[in-house]
Amino acid sequence: MNKDEILTLIIDGSIDISKLKTLLSDMNTADIAEILGELDKDKIIQIFRILPKSIATDVFAYADSDEQQIIIEALTDSEVTEIMNKLFVDDAVDFIEEMPADVVTRVLQHVRLEKRKQINQILQYPDDSAGSIMTTEFVDLREDTLVQDAFNTIRITGLNKETIYTCYVIRRDRLLVGVITAKDLLLARPSDLISDIMDTNVIFAHTTDDREAIADQFQKYGFLAMPVVDKEQRLVGIITVDDIVDVIVEESTEDIEKMAALVPSEDPYLKTGVFQHAKNRFLWMLILMLSATITGSIISSFENGLMVIPILVAFIPMLMNTGGIAGSQTSTLIIRGMAVGEIGMKDILVILWKELRVGVLCGLGLGLVNFIRVFIINNHDWKLCLTVTMSLFCTILMAKTVGSVLPILAKRLKIDPAIMSAPLLTTIVDAVSLIIFFSFSKAILGL
Amino acid sequence: MNKDEILTLIIDGSIDISKLKTLLSDMNTADIAEILGELDKDKIIQIFRILPKSIATDVFAYADSDEQQIIIEALTDSEVTEIMNKLFVDDAVDFIEEMPADVVTRVLQHVRLEKRKQINQILQYPDDSAGSIMTTEFVDLREDTLVQDAFNTIRITGLNKETIYTCYVIRRDRLLVGVITAKDLLLARPSDLISDIMDTNVIFAHTTDDREAIADQFQKYGFLAMPVVDKEQRLVGIITVDDIVDVIVEESTEDIEKMAALVPSEDPYLKTGVFQHAKNRFLWMLILMLSATITGSIISSFENGLMVIPILVAFIPMLMNTGGIAGSQTSTLIIRGMAVGEIGMKDILVILWKELRVGVLCGLGLGLVNFIRVFIINNHDWKLCLTVTMSLFCTILMAKTVGSVLPILAKRLKIDPAIMSAPLLTTIVDAVSLIIFFSFSKAILGL
Repeated sequence: MNKDEILTLIIDGSIDISKLKTLLSDMNTADIAEILGELDKDKIIQIFRILPKSIATDVFAYADSDEQQIIIEALTDSEVTEIMNKLFVDDAVDFIEEMPADVVTRVLQHVRLEKRKQINQILQYPDDSAGSIMTTEFVDLREDTLVQDAFNTIRITGLNKETIYTCYVIRRDRLLVGVITAKDLLLARPSDLISDIMDTNVIFAHTTDDREAIADQFQKYGFLAMPVVDKEQRLVGIITVDDIVDVIVEESTEDIEKMAALVPSEDPYLKTGVFQHAKNRFLWMLILMLSATITGSIISSFENGLMVIPILVAFIPMLMNTGGIAGSQTSTLIIRGMAVGEIGMKDILVILWKELRVGVLCGLGLGLVNFIRVFIINNHDWKLCLTVTMSLFCTILMAKTVGSVLPILAKRLKIDPAIMSAPLLTTIVDAVSLIIFFSFSKAILGL
Repeated sequence: MNKDEILTLIIDGSIDISKLKTLLSDMNTADIAEILGELDKDKIIQIFRILPKSIATDVFAYADSDEQQIIIEALTDSEVTEIMNKLFVDDAVDFIEEMPADVVTRVLQHVRLEKRKQINQILQYPDDSAGSIMTTEFVDLREDTLVQDAFNTIRITGLNKETIYTCYVIRRDRLLVGVITAKDLLLARPSDLISDIMDTNVIFAHTTDDREAIADQFQKYGFLAMPVVDKEQRLVGIITVDDIVDVIVEESTEDIEKMAALVPSEDPYLKTGVFQHAKNRFLWMLILMLSATITGSIISSFENGLMVIPILVAFIPMLMNTGGIAGSQTSTLIIRGMAVGEIGMKDILVILWKELRVGVLCGLGLGLVNFIRVFIINNHDWKLCLTVTMSLFCTILMAKTVGSVLPILAKRLKIDPAIMSAPLLTTIVDAVSLIIFFSFSKAILGL
């Protein structure tokens, strides 16, 4: 029986509890959490209560914060204690971050002291830092341990660790000195010393490192986990690849939103309120609207010319749109290239030279099509054709150049290229394309 | 000594071979591959030759295809044989896909028969399918195996497997019946039977499944690996999380490129030729340019009105730009929401209602600012103010509506929303905003 069928049965109420219990215990916990997301409050509590204890915490960890709050408020103190002490520290932090203050207070009372300290520590790291996405549950080994004893350590403590596949070797002062994978351990002799087979060339992160940079390292090295150290190089946590997958998706969403002139938001679309949505969009709309004052005044200054040949007005949107798309194509490629680490500041000349040639090719092709189009529509007026076509060609070249330079310039000025490019690009391309158009109009049509 | 320092030493030639060899053997193989990317042909070959055999294949796997080709062409037949037989099948496929035909022919001659068959099989799966990103090197176990024997199997065969942390349980006919993690094995008793401790609720992919959907599953379930089966449910390969991280980054890049009216390309910016770049951009530029014929003719049809109040022309770019941004903000949020699985077809009414209210809020705010701006600049002409402000407000509402409906409509028609939205949105919003503007001009200014 698949997830949707089980969901229907639950909503209908047409299944008896013991049968449902059996069905649920065979399901993946992430799927059960998804089912909870589709139910109303009473059903959520009812279903959560019949879950086997062995999977209840897992389901809780996968649930959305809305469902988590409903569940936690319905539980007794001793049930809260059990869940909180079973939750991995990073999942506990994710949960607590989304709860209102009174729930947080109640929940933290039921966490044992040491774990509470760890949770509070992680809560203090800035958003987007390595510290904020790490967990403190990892396997640590000592240099002078034998492989066979390491296995015993893993067997005894492993159940409560987020991963046992990468183990970290630390000194008595918690200084990180090596890393060893479960694969290394399995392939080693039981009598080998950890210090003899560990890898001492450990790639690690600091708690304050940017999580996007960490994600790049995971991608580059193909890590399953990465250790996090404090200022004194003491091991304080690890970051696991499942959290990095989330980071990569979130960071891409953020970049996409910035490029679309939105203030990025971590909340999903449907869970964001109308006021917040409006707030996230208003600023850039305002800036773009006001920056159009520039284009407006350029047009006004050419009003007399436009009165003589009014047909010119009809070409303004075409020039602006084609220029806009030409520029944003280029800036998007450069911004993304910089985000994935392919393009750096040093490549600016290569990019400019490439974009100029691409611009010439596209400009020639579009210019030709445009010439024919205008020639047919506008009664074979070849002077008008020439004016519009030359303007189009130069606008494309200009837009490709601005689209190349802006993101790299932003990076140089330590401004986020994705944020700066869209509004500035539109404003510059619009204004300059009008100036180009009116200049050619004057020169060729003699206005 | 860090990577950049070593790179400088290599380029200078100011380090002797044996010292360099020691330095390199302590380095991470992904970093060595990155160094190769910065060197010229002779140095690449020279450095690759001094690498310890134990890491050479790894470095080769991490290297870019340009460097891979330089290396493979410089190697003797026996060296090629060694590398090819050590490479994981998925890395071998990635490498072969980028090589010219003569290199492929030579390389495949040196691969042993069974592996050659596997490589050829994977090469035949369509791009973007699960089959194309899987590897055939995995640990398979039988149901009637004891845990202690499973460990022996892993010890003997594990060195050549891409991962040993997720093992798959198959029948004699290769039918997939269960999954068991190394953690389960480590925490089990040596005398347990695999069939008693394995998880029979296996979530698997088919070879023809879309890789983006697989990536979603990795994100949802937090997998390290996922099994891939053929039509008869026989296990043929596995997909590991390191490849999924690449898929997620590539798919995000693809979406970003589509939204920017680019034909998505798998090749990095700097390695794509000028003609290819021009080709990837020309089509959408052409479509957008031609669609501006519509706006052009709307403006032409209102030419007489514009001759009477020429100042109206100056507001056209502002209305179009603000409408464009209002629409693309919305469509971007919807497209991304659908890509990450948050938004579905069923949410259309919720979205429309939300966007209408967001549009009213943004429209009121921008309308107010605009009214004041136009009032000041245009000599307190309140009729003109009203015309422009009302047009702006309605344009924003219209753009938000079109921006909500288009992506969902595209999805319904099974067209990629990211591809369809940008050009169609611009065309519709431009045209309708002009009609709105001219209608208000007629009604209020009596043209």
